[in-house]
Amino acid sequence: MEDDAVLLVASTAPDEATARRIAQALVERRLAACVNVGAPVWSVYRWQGAIEQAQEFPLWIKTTAARRQALMQALAELHPYDVPEALALPAVDGLPAYLEWVRQEVKE
Amino acid sequence: MEDDAVLLVASTAPDEATARRIAQALVERRLAACVNVGAPVWSVYRWQGAIEQAQEFPLWIKTTAARRQALMQALAELHPYDVPEALALPAVDGLPAYLEWVRQEVKE
Amino acid sequence: MEDDAVLLVASTAPDEATARRIAQALVERRLAACVNVGAPVWSVYRWQGAIEQAQEFPLWIKTTAARRQALMQALAELHPYDVPEALALPAVDGLPAYLEWVRQEVKE
Repeated sequence: MEDDAVLLVASTAPDEATARRIAQALVERRLAACVNVGAPVWSVYRWQGAIEQAQEFPLWIKTTAARRQALMQALAELHPYDVPEALALPAVDGLPAYLEWVRQEVKE
Repeated sequence: MEDDAVLLVASTAPDEATARRIAQALVERRLAACVNVGAPVWSVYRWQGAIEQAQEFPLWIKTTAARRQALMQALAELHPYDVPEALALPAVDGLPAYLEWVRQEVKE
Repeated sequence: MEDDAVLLVASTAPDEATARRIAQALVERRLAACVNVGAPVWSVYRWQGAIEQAQEFPLWIKTTAARRQALMQALAELHPYDVPEALALPAVDGLPAYLEWVRQEVKE
């Protein structure tokens, strides 16, 4: 994967305040160019043998391949869960000006 | 694609009860580690020559490449639509503990 | 990337009316088989040196690789932003009938 490949990283947080705090910190640290905190979702999942349900807030995080390790490390540090979700989805194309904007905004 | 590659499968359902029923069943059958049912979306699409609009509920399904065929088969069986949406988006990276959790929770 | 690869293109719009107008136009022009306009999201991002926050409406656009350039050109033309978001995420698999439906609905 090219270092300047743009990624959409999907995550969730237990409440809106936590989601916004994490989103703000990732942008401040230039680990994300933009983060969208979505409307609450209903989640169903297995945890330690039991099926559980919870309300969560999705985060859609725009970054680059080069910054993804630092981003996920910060996400783990900032997040209250022991095992927060972080799935990096690769963009195979996009509007050139937008892709370039993402790259510039996460440059160290 | 590696069998243990983690996928985010996007789908929709016509109402929240159906979305939650499908999500719960996929987790119970160990076809998904987690499913998020999102807030309602407004959909516009072509169907049999006409442009239609409808309210739908998005499902974001976390699974592995190895389980995707069984997952999509179950989705088609559980879903009221003749042609339900199912798009498998590959994660190229993620928090290792999270990726491993997904893999463990959908193991047969 | 194969021409008939199906893509999920992520974008956002500043308000619901704009999001729906763009979505409708993309389907009418056979540039998208389906577009979901999501519930409002809270966005945080850097713009011209400052960190800003705004409410946006997400668009999830289903198209093919062959139509993505024309889609993004139309998105840029229809969109009020100077640099609208457009990230094309590749589907590596899906329900065959659904993938085929997307391909048919965006055929020129």
